[in-house]
Amino acid sequence: MARVITVTLNPALDLAFDLEELTLGTVNRPRNAQLEAAGKGVNVARVLASLGHHVVVSGFLGCDNDGPFQRAFTQLGVTDAFVRVPGETRINAKLAEKSGRVTDINGPGIGVDATQVAALLNSIKQQLNNEPADAILVAGSLPPGLSLTSFATLLTELKATGVPLWVDTSGEALLCAIEAAPEAVKPNELELANWAGEALDNHAKRVSATRRLYQAGIGQALLSAGADGVIWVNAKGTWQSTPPRVQTANTVGAGDTFVAGMLHGVLSQQSDEETLRFATALSAESVRHVGVGNALADDFAVLLQHTQVQRLYASRTEGTSQ
Amino acid sequence: MARVITVTLNPALDLAFDLEELTLGTVNRPRNAQLEAAGKGVNVARVLASLGHHVVVSGFLGCDNDGPFQRAFTQLGVTDAFVRVPGETRINAKLAEKSGRVTDINGPGIGVDATQVAALLNSIKQQLNNEPADAILVAGSLPPGLSLTSFATLLTELKATGVPLWVDTSGEALLCAIEAAPEAVKPNELELANWAGEALDNHAKRVSATRRLYQAGIGQALLSAGADGVIWVNAKGTWQSTPPRVQTANTVGAGDTFVAGMLHGVLSQQSDEETLRFATALSAESVRHVGVGNALADDFAVLLQHTQVQRLYASRTEGTSQ
Repeated sequence: MARVITVTLNPALDLAFDLEELTLGTVNRPRNAQLEAAGKGVNVARVLASLGHHVVVSGFLGCDNDGPFQRAFTQLGVTDAFVRVPGETRINAKLAEKSGRVTDINGPGIGVDATQVAALLNSIKQQLNNEPADAILVAGSLPPGLSLTSFATLLTELKATGVPLWVDTSGEALLCAIEAAPEAVKPNELELANWAGEALDNHAKRVSATRRLYQAGIGQALLSAGADGVIWVNAKGTWQSTPPRVQTANTVGAGDTFVAGMLHGVLSQQSDEETLRFATALSAESVRHVGVGNALADDFAVLLQHTQVQRLYASRTEGTSQ
Repeated sequence: MARVITVTLNPALDLAFDLEELTLGTVNRPRNAQLEAAGKGVNVARVLASLGHHVVVSGFLGCDNDGPFQRAFTQLGVTDAFVRVPGETRINAKLAEKSGRVTDINGPGIGVDATQVAALLNSIKQQLNNEPADAILVAGSLPPGLSLTSFATLLTELKATGVPLWVDTSGEALLCAIEAAPEAVKPNELELANWAGEALDNHAKRVSATRRLYQAGIGQALLSAGADGVIWVNAKGTWQSTPPRVQTANTVGAGDTFVAGMLHGVLSQQSDEETLRFATALSAESVRHVGVGNALADDFAVLLQHTQVQRLYASRTEGTSQ
């Protein structure tokens, strides 16, 4: 089993309301309300831990409401290396209606300063001194107070540890991350289009942009396009997966499940085809319900079987600069 | 100054999001998000404490997230006598849009059992043994697990302490409270109509129903009708107030501010006219902003001046059964 450090710079408590229908301007009484430790790195940790890996969870947590996180980490059996900062971790509201419509309200998050960023880096290096890791994943948005420059420095320092660095973020933070050339990034179509500077409105363009991402120094270039599947370019070739058809109940956590599935496959030395099939099927499993994907689902073998994986090019024919 | 015990059986943390506009089915990024200790009895305590009264706050709080309450109580200088129950106090989301529209999502709350209700009653009696109180206010909805029968028993026991009992609740709990004949209740128009068994679609009907409420054994019968003002019937007569016109920003907490203002006037031995004028003006002050009313607002004297109070009947002409 692998040892992975996930870093969630701007985590959240998810407050999920289960509503018959949301009526604006009135008092709504949900059928259920649940508060859960969340954030992309925490979700990935959930999946990796369920697959038997050793996970260290890190990032920033507010001192004043870390109880639900502590309880979740104990339950998951992951090591809590979050740096505590004064105040409260944000609470994001998720309003799920019976129709399947989900409305998210995501607050800005707790502010951090340079001292706290330095403390985070030291804490991660301490974890690596204690025991080597097989990958570091930095996931999610940036908290207020963490500039793009500081983020770039943090990524460079993490990369310098020699541990493969995976980054899953969006917007300007993603552009900044690509500059740092980590081992892996996983933009969606709009995000990759933003980097590529052109609309990716057909398959050929999507493949071409993902290959350019690989050529820009990303060892594992992953384009996730939801129900349209994934394009994956690495030193060994270009792969495409198409997920099985499932009834979509909740897509929150599908991307995090996919990243966890990819880390699982790559770090378990599975073949590229097996890795991509597993990650794509597990992500499809997750959208059928609230929460992350469950590889122990009764019909998971069927989902794997109905996940199509295709090699588009082998590395020899790619003419990459690597 | 008076000593008041406020009892909030089903408190909440209010998670208030300040949004430009809420768009359903997407990720919304609020301009601000704030988590605050709330619940009707807590709001009333806020106002009473700001007016210099000694307040004991009681009710049920979840052990796992009482931090924001503890901090608020310390800041307000009120005595925390809440009974702790296992789990987390509910978090209610309030989505305020720039247009003024407010959408509330109020969860069911934390469950309580008979042992916990007994512990609450003991704790309140202990408070009264320590030092007498001038009023007990029971405010807000009932938590899951507290039946109407248990609620009625609780009110009867509280009334038996001899301390004037004020109750501000709604629905079936209000009907149950009226049966117990406490010192004061404050229904709104719909709630009073529900008790009276007829629509209160004109002023005469509203006055008549409020007088019947008084005759049913409620010493201070208060009908609050928002911007249409208040009708108040007690042993000395029938009063009507009309609030000053203000720009409405947020009506959350206006009713709680009114109740606190009434308690303040009555317990400070102010005249009925002064009491109703103050409570009505303070409630109007509160709707101009988020939060409860502030008697130290620069223009509060102007608001008082523009609050109309009228005596409709003196007790002699009422022909009440008292």
